[in-house]
Amino acid sequence: MKYIIKFFLPILILILLNACASEGKKFTSEVTSPDKNIKVSFHLSAENQPFYVVNYKTEKVIDSSKMGFELKDAAPLSGDFRIVATDTASVNETWQPVWGEDAEVKNEYNELKLQLEETSALKRKINIIFKVYDDGIGFRYEFPKQENLNEVVITDENTEFNLTGNHKVWWIPGDWDIYEYLYQTTKFSEIDALKLYEPGTHLGQTYMPENAVNTPVTMKTEAGLYLSFHEADLTDYAGMTLAVDTTNHKMKSELVGNAENIKVKRQTPFETPWRTIQIAEKPGQLIESKLIVNLNDPNVVEDMSFFKPTKYTGIWWDMHIGTGNWDYAGANHAANTTYAKELIDFSAKHNINAMLVEGWNIGWEQWWDKKAKQVDFDFVTPYPDYDLQEVVRYGKSKGVALIMHHETSADVTGYEAQIDTAFALMKDLKIHAVKTGYVGSVIPEGEYHHGQFMVNHYQKVLEKGIENQVAINAHEPIKATGKRRTYPVAISREGVRGQEYNAWSDDGGNPPEHLTIVPFTRMLGGPVDYTPGIFNTSLKPYKENNQINTTLAHQLALYVVVYSPVQMVPDLIKNYEGHPAFQFIEDVGIDWQQSKVLDAEIGDFIVMARQEKQTGHWFLGAITDEQARTVTINFDFLEAGKNYTATIYKDAADAHYKTNPEAYEISSEDISNNSKLELMLAAGGGVAIAIKESNK
Amino acid sequence: MKYIIKFFLPILILILLNACASEGKKFTSEVTSPDKNIKVSFHLSAENQPFYVVNYKTEKVIDSSKMGFELKDAAPLSGDFRIVATDTASVNETWQPVWGEDAEVKNEYNELKLQLEETSALKRKINIIFKVYDDGIGFRYEFPKQENLNEVVITDENTEFNLTGNHKVWWIPGDWDIYEYLYQTTKFSEIDALKLYEPGTHLGQTYMPENAVNTPVTMKTEAGLYLSFHEADLTDYAGMTLAVDTTNHKMKSELVGNAENIKVKRQTPFETPWRTIQIAEKPGQLIESKLIVNLNDPNVVEDMSFFKPTKYTGIWWDMHIGTGNWDYAGANHAANTTYAKELIDFSAKHNINAMLVEGWNIGWEQWWDKKAKQVDFDFVTPYPDYDLQEVVRYGKSKGVALIMHHETSADVTGYEAQIDTAFALMKDLKIHAVKTGYVGSVIPEGEYHHGQFMVNHYQKVLEKGIENQVAINAHEPIKATGKRRTYPVAISREGVRGQEYNAWSDDGGNPPEHLTIVPFTRMLGGPVDYTPGIFNTSLKPYKENNQINTTLAHQLALYVVVYSPVQMVPDLIKNYEGHPAFQFIEDVGIDWQQSKVLDAEIGDFIVMARQEKQTGHWFLGAITDEQARTVTINFDFLEAGKNYTATIYKDAADAHYKTNPEAYEISSEDISNNSKLELMLAAGGGVAIAIKESNK
Repeated sequence: MKYIIKFFLPILILILLNACASEGKKFTSEVTSPDKNIKVSFHLSAENQPFYVVNYKTEKVIDSSKMGFELKDAAPLSGDFRIVATDTASVNETWQPVWGEDAEVKNEYNELKLQLEETSALKRKINIIFKVYDDGIGFRYEFPKQENLNEVVITDENTEFNLTGNHKVWWIPGDWDIYEYLYQTTKFSEIDALKLYEPGTHLGQTYMPENAVNTPVTMKTEAGLYLSFHEADLTDYAGMTLAVDTTNHKMKSELVGNAENIKVKRQTPFETPWRTIQIAEKPGQLIESKLIVNLNDPNVVEDMSFFKPTKYTGIWWDMHIGTGNWDYAGANHAANTTYAKELIDFSAKHNINAMLVEGWNIGWEQWWDKKAKQVDFDFVTPYPDYDLQEVVRYGKSKGVALIMHHETSADVTGYEAQIDTAFALMKDLKIHAVKTGYVGSVIPEGEYHHGQFMVNHYQKVLEKGIENQVAINAHEPIKATGKRRTYPVAISREGVRGQEYNAWSDDGGNPPEHLTIVPFTRMLGGPVDYTPGIFNTSLKPYKENNQINTTLAHQLALYVVVYSPVQMVPDLIKNYEGHPAFQFIEDVGIDWQQSKVLDAEIGDFIVMARQEKQTGHWFLGAITDEQARTVTINFDFLEAGKNYTATIYKDAADAHYKTNPEAYEISSEDISNNSKLELMLAAGGGVAIAIKESNK
Repeated sequence: MKYIIKFFLPILILILLNACASEGKKFTSEVTSPDKNIKVSFHLSAENQPFYVVNYKTEKVIDSSKMGFELKDAAPLSGDFRIVATDTASVNETWQPVWGEDAEVKNEYNELKLQLEETSALKRKINIIFKVYDDGIGFRYEFPKQENLNEVVITDENTEFNLTGNHKVWWIPGDWDIYEYLYQTTKFSEIDALKLYEPGTHLGQTYMPENAVNTPVTMKTEAGLYLSFHEADLTDYAGMTLAVDTTNHKMKSELVGNAENIKVKRQTPFETPWRTIQIAEKPGQLIESKLIVNLNDPNVVEDMSFFKPTKYTGIWWDMHIGTGNWDYAGANHAANTTYAKELIDFSAKHNINAMLVEGWNIGWEQWWDKKAKQVDFDFVTPYPDYDLQEVVRYGKSKGVALIMHHETSADVTGYEAQIDTAFALMKDLKIHAVKTGYVGSVIPEGEYHHGQFMVNHYQKVLEKGIENQVAINAHEPIKATGKRRTYPVAISREGVRGQEYNAWSDDGGNPPEHLTIVPFTRMLGGPVDYTPGIFNTSLKPYKENNQINTTLAHQLALYVVVYSPVQMVPDLIKNYEGHPAFQFIEDVGIDWQQSKVLDAEIGDFIVMARQEKQTGHWFLGAITDEQARTVTINFDFLEAGKNYTATIYKDAADAHYKTNPEAYEISSEDISNNSKLELMLAAGGGVAIAIKESNK
């Protein structure tokens, strides 16, 4: 990892303000983005409460919004402040992620740090730091080491986001346990998360005390500006939902708590995650933004050579469509040595370097029903028909690495008790990746997936990963907040309503628009393990009442549209073998030099292009919602003066996600950076293009 | 091999005819095809010369045509005969080839055998046997064991084919050494083979004493009937060309001789090859006809399990486009261990079970120039950079068998001296196939490729093959005459102007129509090792002045249109890897249950369908000449009541063999036996379709 600090200018300005404050006058401090478009203003109110305002060009984006905390057995930390000092700094550096959407990341911002101190006798201190980028802002609170504030028990963080209009919002409910909801598209005033909250009806509804949304939550203003609210560097703190005040168009941080109504317990000094607001004139800029990773610390893992971005096959989809079972007691146990070797052979043949096996270890018979379960998961003992060592050996001989699987059923107590043994086995067998799962309600009881306890657990697993050279792909995770920069072992995670819902959900599956929203919401947090690429979209003959609500070409395009350094190739071997369109999956890059959103409208369509790091090949993916549409693709991103061959995988003229989803066409075009192509996307359709420099 | 003799009725009719003959009256004996459409009449003329006539329905196909021989140092054997006996028989059996276009072959015919004896003092005997099938006729001469005819030295066979019109003819010159000519399409009266005979200008012109054509030669009558003339079971005899009398629309057998002007030398008893005339109302019936194989003896190879039909890659195309050399002395020796292993890996990955290596053995430095050559070919010693044993071992470990290569440069004396050693090496290494080559003029001098000496040599190699379990793919071979039935080791052969001409010939390469004629001419003899499937049809950047004169889809279709139990996959790995259309080559069958010509016009287009034996999958290939055209494909050959998925590899709308040959489209259709599809074939274009039963 090499840092190029091009420009660093810390400016410390100490201003004695006591006189002003005592007169009840507002003091305003400002910081702008490097391009001057974004301006953040901080001020103390007449009551000496901290407020901030955000402007973009001439538009007010966030009106005066209060900041502060409620503490357990202590006075709130929200007013009666004076500004002790104001620090500003400017940074312009470039860093290289180990893996990611782009090989180089520019980190350029102006910083404003306010050191606040209560005027009361306790003189409790809190600092507020704003970093203002061209693509948005982040701010966090620092709780410095101080005499009268040692253990801090936060019962509420009251950070407000006071919107300036009744924006169009893409949102999911602020569930405390799971993010696996369909995105809703409503006016802000129409957000009604509790209406979607029907506990017990499905996995994705557990606990949500009020009308709130999970982040990233994305909006479009009347003026056409795009905003997305999220957090960065969520460490030893509770996840933040945003409670919505539909009348006043306000949001307020609502931290995920536990049964004791405690949100966060820390010792000073500590700092909160960054509260972030991405601001963009075009929706694609939200995706291209590096705000979230930039607001995390640099990589601490010196040697990440054990992990390379990879596609992976797996024993997984079988269980969702019913051709195999996780558990051994039932018939049809999928995770057997024979099947694993078949997948290894298939993977080796198609340059797929990894394979996941779910259901390999004892404990699946009653994993779902915690009360009744008689067999706890064991993370080292395979079922009798699965020879773990042999699968690892065979895979290695073919260049296919095993991805381990740990389903914890959210029994974190049980998992942590076994975690050292479990990771030791992986270290011993040189298994360098694990998919973890946290289905069900958390043990210990009273904790929620998104609370501080679980945030710390997920962090602990990352640390075990670093210690044992194992990369982590967490399902039912805490949301991604850019920690992948600091801990590149955090390779991917779920935290989204994934492909598997299409196989069994009774609400019709994920609608065609689903993945035209996910990139602008969930994916702004980080890599998404969506598991695209189902070819048998009808799911026949396995699931008569379910189907994938996209065309086949749309499924291909997802390998470009959805970013993850691990992308599953999940369908049954027989649905891929012999299918000409599988060539795209075999070819498509997984490790990128650069990524561009060529065109998009949230919830309607998206056209992405990414350049493969090792080869320089470009791959383009475009998808549309339930509306067929024509997209014009301008290849001006290609290098001038070179000839390229574009292999185009598109919807057939009569394709339709409902009636004719698997109708595709593959063709080839000679193109250059002067080329434009008009391509028809069917309803629920897409197009995937592989672009290689022509050798002629 | 299992024979089902359904019906066998030998009828021996002895008729004393001396009285009639002495009176100069003609005797006529007739035999008809089982369906009564074809009638062959035999008669002795007033001079007691044997004549035959062929009718199809009401049309006279062959008018009175003389039969007879000229012998060395003896009177001609052509007149003064009496009929000693007339035998008739009917056969209706079904046999199963080891491999072939169809898993079952019906062999149904009526036979007429005339026993002739000279009325002169020598009383030399000759029998003439006609077999009349629904799809054509064959006749041969038997020279029985007899007192006054022991050693027979034939200087001319005078079998006439007296045509009944100035037919349209698809022909190549009657060259005595090579068949590698472009097919000419002319009126019979316009045949001028000598005009194409420019010895020394290229490989394909060696020796041809008169205006003659090689067989199979195919014709279309004014009435629209299709005829093809050839021979079957060419054994220990000279190959037959047909001398053309353009004025009288007559052809006469002109056997290939040697420098001593001897055509055939045999001991009685012996029999000539069958002279064959295929007769069809539709051109496709010529291809579907089993006349040629039916006129050969049953399989004599008990255990053919060592050979399975297979696609094969190889070190071969490199030499033709100049990216590699056969010889080691020059730079860039292609047949090295590393490259062979790359090809093995590629083959294994794509279910291709064999690989050919040319240029592996010492002797290539001056092989072309016989006078100057200092190093004879050695068929056991590899060049230093080629580890034969290791390549065989590595291939076996990956399921890819090596195909051996023996280029003899037509030094048959040299080859036969080494042949036991050469075959022993293959036996030792369990190499079960060899491609032989006979480029250049024959040693011993005075012999020609198509003469009796060479016919016997090619036969000897087949016998060595049987002895050592090695299948033979002969290049610069004697023509195929159905011997593959008797000797299934004769898996394929060249004997056609192959793909390689496109890489270097200065006459513009093979025109788009080439492969719309070959199936109706050369391919009627038997399997053709054309080596289809070049994807880089422009040959850029290797050959700026050459190109393949077909589209890419046309190349794919050739795997169905052209039959061979070994089909090469010849292009460079890099032109295949990652190309979606390569899926067709990976999928396309090689061992067939049945084959059908759906539609065709010779020289214009052909639509073939073949069903794979092991899987029941169907594959369809259609190609057109330089004219773009729309073909309507009726899928009524599929099983009723079943659903199929057709993966269609077709020309892009703007494809053209000259300007845009590699523009293709791949799509998929759900079809049944009620389906019809209209498909546009570009100029020089084609379409290839893989059809599998749908599992939905």
